Amino acid sequence: MNYIVFKNENALYYECGYSCDNAIFLKLGKDAFFITDGRYELEAKEQVKKAKVIISNMLLKEAITIIKKNKIKQLTIDPNEWNIFSFNRLKDTLKLNFNFVPNFSHKKRIIKTQKEIELLQKAVKIGKKSFKKIAQEILKNKGSKEFELNFLAESIFRAYGKRDISFEPILAINENAAKPHALPTKKKLKNKSLILLDGGVKYKRYCSDRTRTAFFDEDFSFKLNQKFHSKKMQKVYDLVRKAHDKAIAKARVGMRAKEIDKIARDVIEKGGYGKYFVHSTGHGVGLDIHEMPYISSRSDTIIEEGMVFTIEPGIYLPDEFGVRIEDMVVMQGSKAKVL
Amino acid sequence: MNYIVFKNENALYYECGYSCDNAIFLKLGKDAFFITDGRYELEAKEQVKKAKVIISNMLLKEAITIIKKNKIKQLTIDPNEWNIFSFNRLKDTLKLNFNFVPNFSHKKRIIKTQKEIELLQKAVKIGKKSFKKIAQEILKNKGSKEFELNFLAESIFRAYGKRDISFEPILAINENAAKPHALPTKKKLKNKSLILLDGGVKYKRYCSDRTRTAFFDEDFSFKLNQKFHSKKMQKVYDLVRKAHDKAIAKARVGMRAKEIDKIARDVIEKGGYGKYFVHSTGHGVGLDIHEMPYISSRSDTIIEEGMVFTIEPGIYLPDEFGVRIEDMVVMQGSKAKVL
Repeated sequence: MNYIVFKNENALYYECGYSCDNAIFLKLGKDAFFITDGRYELEAKEQVKKAKVIISNMLLKEAITIIKKNKIKQLTIDPNEWNIFSFNRLKDTLKLNFNFVPNFSHKKRIIKTQKEIELLQKAVKIGKKSFKKIAQEILKNKGSKEFELNFLAESIFRAYGKRDISFEPILAINENAAKPHALPTKKKLKNKSLILLDGGVKYKRYCSDRTRTAFFDEDFSFKLNQKFHSKKMQKVYDLVRKAHDKAIAKARVGMRAKEIDKIARDVIEKGGYGKYFVHSTGHGVGLDIHEMPYISSRSDTIIEEGMVFTIEPGIYLPDEFGVRIEDMVVMQGSKAKVL
Repeated sequence: MNYIVFKNENALYYECGYSCDNAIFLKLGKDAFFITDGRYELEAKEQVKKAKVIISNMLLKEAITIIKKNKIKQLTIDPNEWNIFSFNRLKDTLKLNFNFVPNFSHKKRIIKTQKEIELLQKAVKIGKKSFKKIAQEILKNKGSKEFELNFLAESIFRAYGKRDISFEPILAINENAAKPHALPTKKKLKNKSLILLDGGVKYKRYCSDRTRTAFFDEDFSFKLNQKFHSKKMQKVYDLVRKAHDKAIAKARVGMRAKEIDKIARDVIEKGGYGKYFVHSTGHGVGLDIHEMPYISSRSDTIIEEGMVFTIEPGIYLPDEFGVRIEDMVVMQGSKAKVL
């Protein structure tokens, strides 16, 4: 099989153990080439595995030359990865059949190896420790503003993750938690508030992802058992928790992804909050924070052993509050095991 | 003029003052639309200026519906921004002329407004303060490992920039500085070392970018006047400094970008190190850390009043050391003024 990977860092890393922001990986039968520019020469030559490193200021031109020289008849590319501009250069200079495979690298990576599962497990463990530390530090910084707490949380994720985080964390209080991707405000944290924290770290480039919603008062932590002072908050929290727990308990190898989504969604719909669960139930996690399988109502992907994804139902009541609970699971022994 | 901006966050922000990671901006004559999904509804409705906010789970389908309804005949798109997959959906459902403008948003943004220059100036000022603080902290953390100092530098940039940095900073010692985009190692910082620091912060989304190379001993700072113990380092440093100073002093409105590159390159070539200056002299800076104009030997862009770019010549001697000196300039009164 012949394929070409263009600039997509995690796809490059998956192929050869190294990536940088300007490179092409080319696999032509048994031969592999990693083409990058002079800035990355020394590192690429040290770190690229099982591919010949080629240095050029014109990556695409170099790739085209190699493809021509090897008399390639068919080349697989990801139409999501290639922009029209670069693809037109390929198409106009190469006389061959292009095999378009959307999400080519994500598809290759959908089943995790034992080694990858270990790395993800380690990332999750570091993420968990960060949540614990963040709760302690929030208690020491009562009365801080939301954006300050957000910065605090990010610093802790970065310190525990040795700088690499999966994404900029979300720390949102009360009504701001009703925005699934909230930007931090200047609002101060007060007792009897709801706090939502969504964040993760990377371990050797593999991501963790977790969300907890908690009741903040004199004492608090991000544990799953939460007691809210407001009956409505408690009801909504318990419903989200039930959806989260049930989806994890009932997920099985052989199901379609949309069936798992439906398990969580049915719980919330029966509870009367269906229209406030505005996103899908989960997504795959690996080198990318969002990858396959997508646990959505539209996904026909069949769940297999070794897949890793999040289960993260949520209910968002505009101008009131939001609740989301998220864990990462791996399919093992045909069931979902929380990482 | 009709155009469509797809998912490119800084291009979206430039159009309407808000962005998120899943949105389309559509400009059809006098009408403008910002299409995003339910996760961003509340924020988009609060923050998007001069465009109608439309919520949909299928952005592209929604955009196509609006374009059809408005009977649009010609639509400008950036072929670098659109992947083949999404563009094919546009092309297959819309009967109109596509006007391909590579780097459409970067072209719109190449001349900075007075307001933008003020924001960039502010970002540069914060970046400068960070460099000073980082030097002080390095002196307090002698004997640290390169990756620890790198983390320290990043933390300071983040704290001063209120979390947003232009890119992950580079802090490299001696031979690691010979890699223009070095990854940090476990090597410890010793006296009589060379340190290269490249980093910047964002202020209201506008980036700063600066590099200094310094001699580390009992005392040190990132000032431009540096005294190295090694004659070779001093010679190379002085040559890079001369190239940097001369390019800034001689840059004029009306020149082509490649002429500015040539001023810096000629100094280094005459000094005998031409083949070790492996990248171009500079790049524009704005909402993106790399934008137009590119100050490279291949760029015919004519330099105009209000353009902002870096001047950053460098010499990289593999397995020995590297030197780069970088400042941001704005073209004002037909000359380059250091920000």
